[in-house]
Amino acid sequence: MPPTHPNARLEAFCDGVFAIAATLLVVDIRVPTTVRVDSAADLWLQLVRLTPALLALVLSFTVIFITWVNHHATLKLIDQSATSFVYANGLLLLTVAFVPFPTTLLGEYVASSDATPAVTVYNAVLAAQGAAWVLVCRTAVSKGLATDDRAAAMLRANGRYGLGALLLYSLLAVLALWLPHVAVGITAVTWAFWLVHSARLRTA
Amino acid sequence: MPPTHPNARLEAFCDGVFAIAATLLVVDIRVPTTVRVDSAADLWLQLVRLTPALLALVLSFTVIFITWVNHHATLKLIDQSATSFVYANGLLLLTVAFVPFPTTLLGEYVASSDATPAVTVYNAVLAAQGAAWVLVCRTAVSKGLATDDRAAAMLRANGRYGLGALLLYSLLAVLALWLPHVAVGITAVTWAFWLVHSARLRTA
Amino acid sequence: MPPTHPNARLEAFCDGVFAIAATLLVVDIRVPTTVRVDSAADLWLQLVRLTPALLALVLSFTVIFITWVNHHATLKLIDQSATSFVYANGLLLLTVAFVPFPTTLLGEYVASSDATPAVTVYNAVLAAQGAAWVLVCRTAVSKGLATDDRAAAMLRANGRYGLGALLLYSLLAVLALWLPHVAVGITAVTWAFWLVHSARLRTA
Amino acid sequence: MPPTHPNARLEAFCDGVFAIAATLLVVDIRVPTTVRVDSAADLWLQLVRLTPALLALVLSFTVIFITWVNHHATLKLIDQSATSFVYANGLLLLTVAFVPFPTTLLGEYVASSDATPAVTVYNAVLAAQGAAWVLVCRTAVSKGLATDDRAAAMLRANGRYGLGALLLYSLLAVLALWLPHVAVGITAVTWAFWLVHSARLRTA
Repeated sequence: MPPTHPNARLEAFCDGVFAIAATLLVVDIRVPTTVRVDSAADLWLQLVRLTPALLALVLSFTVIFITWVNHHATLKLIDQSATSFVYANGLLLLTVAFVPFPTTLLGEYVASSDATPAVTVYNAVLAAQGAAWVLVCRTAVSKGLATDDRAAAMLRANGRYGLGALLLYSLLAVLALWLPHVAVGITAVTWAFWLVHSARLRTA
Repeated sequence: MPPTHPNARLEAFCDGVFAIAATLLVVDIRVPTTVRVDSAADLWLQLVRLTPALLALVLSFTVIFITWVNHHATLKLIDQSATSFVYANGLLLLTVAFVPFPTTLLGEYVASSDATPAVTVYNAVLAAQGAAWVLVCRTAVSKGLATDDRAAAMLRANGRYGLGALLLYSLLAVLALWLPHVAVGITAVTWAFWLVHSARLRTA
Repeated sequence: MPPTHPNARLEAFCDGVFAIAATLLVVDIRVPTTVRVDSAADLWLQLVRLTPALLALVLSFTVIFITWVNHHATLKLIDQSATSFVYANGLLLLTVAFVPFPTTLLGEYVASSDATPAVTVYNAVLAAQGAAWVLVCRTAVSKGLATDDRAAAMLRANGRYGLGALLLYSLLAVLALWLPHVAVGITAVTWAFWLVHSARLRTA
Repeated sequence: MPPTHPNARLEAFCDGVFAIAATLLVVDIRVPTTVRVDSAADLWLQLVRLTPALLALVLSFTVIFITWVNHHATLKLIDQSATSFVYANGLLLLTVAFVPFPTTLLGEYVASSDATPAVTVYNAVLAAQGAAWVLVCRTAVSKGLATDDRAAAMLRANGRYGLGALLLYSLLAVLALWLPHVAVGITAVTWAFWLVHSARLRTA
């Protein structure tokens, strides 16, 4: 066997799940059927009504893409593998593969007066993703998979970001019980922040 | 042509099918449509009703991820290819690609009084996966694809686990005819056990 | 840039399309909804009614997997690339990505008295796949992409198999206008034959 | 870690999204259900009615495949990475992953008297793809990622094609407000032109 990176196939599997989850987001945006559409003006109206679903798609695509970028950067800090690390990644992938469901829920209900369950579930899934991220980073450190001490320090820092995400999105999930539109607004802003910030986690 | 592992493209194809099957599981969890939802309390109720579907998703994601981990470990024991081995893997992939169907069936009916067909079909698919696993391992051994004698012995051991899975899930499929909820409980427990055990099948 | 096979990324893209098309086949097998199901016996009956859809899935999975195996073997005969060759592969991928549609059509109608359109469309798609295959092989030969003379001879042979498939499935598409069940039976038998035969197209 | 191309995993992720978006196009072509079909003649009629959806599928598959070919050629001009370049690619992937939605919309409405919204949205998505393309090429040049001066010049040329696409499809989106069928005809012709032209952007 030619020497390959011990995590090469894990990377391939993760890339697959990230790419599929991101691309599946569009599947649940339903094209209005001809039966209910009487005119071009009516069709425009139906399309405008899809705006919340489109915004939810863009938010979730951003979430998945940033998580992929961070995952990419994190695996570069590691040059060994361990079964517990593989399973920790499996848990992270489960939370990523699940994203299309709360996204559709958010798109369907965020603009209604019953937005609370959708916003709470969406933030709860992000909190679960933060928890999985903590597990991935801590397992990598505790199993001694880091390439060197500097990499181990960066893994610990990534784990702390994961912990921050877990706390933040848990709080937003609770806040959504009273102020769903404020909560989802903060959620969107945090990802705009991550979009800028994740650049700094990156290794050259 | 640069020298690559003879199974490199088979691995890529398998990784694709595993990743897609795992990510497609979420597609059939239906977001309640606004038409049937009158209030936030009503939406919460509808979401709670999705619990069996969520549990079925988590179980099937675990099944697919563990099968991928074991497949990964098994291909590391092999450094040649053969057409019959490729087709044996094809059969395994068919049983993996099929998992979303019994998963949706299980999620829809496991909490009802008509759980028997869903639980029987789910375990029958797991039994078929066990049979495909036996075929993969036996073909690898009989075609002499193992890297060395120790790898061949591990392939034989994996084949015996496959045979055990075939027998166990066949029995559970039959048991479900009388006691579907007991059967599905045992199915879930076996995968929690595999989750721990598959670590030991792994090669360094 | 490290030296990589000129078709490495084409292979990755093709593997993706093959794997996704094969895995998407299950999506259109609809789980009976609880609304229409009154008892376990009723659910069993509904599941038995899915038998034609399951057989169509197995047939199409076999078609896609064998086509992937042959594609794999064919790309091994080639060590250069050309834009026209990439586009010929694109045409082949279009016919592969399209397979889920005629598969669902076949599963829905093959057991009915109105099987003709489904069987004709299914065989027409296989004929189009044969035509794309001819184009892939001929482009590879005419652009001088083969690794050596023996590889070029094998590409020509593969092209002739593609031409045979084009003619055979065109005839079956026509035959289905009068005898749809005979035509689909012959279609299934030919793929059982290909399953055995494709082993011989394979290069070591 | 073995030395790999700095964009290897970005390529893998992009290939995944391109392949999935292309293969998902078929999912929204709905097989007529047995309930509404009374005879083989009726089924043929229903299938003929899917012609606009099939043409939209072929157009979008061509769009995605050509974009993938150009993306492939563009990444060959680059031998470094930068976070802003990764995010520019993320924006391009968002516009690619979104293609199935306007494709279904086009297939559903292009043959009706209410084609305007579908054609305008379709061209607007192509314009957004052109804008993302400009960003990808400009970021690569401004961050100094090109392999050499000749590659930088080709990246600048690709960026100008992207700008041309942005302007052209914006104009067609506007034209569709009055003449939707003329606009969509021009859209289709431009991709036939790109199919020929993209060969010339390619590097050996």
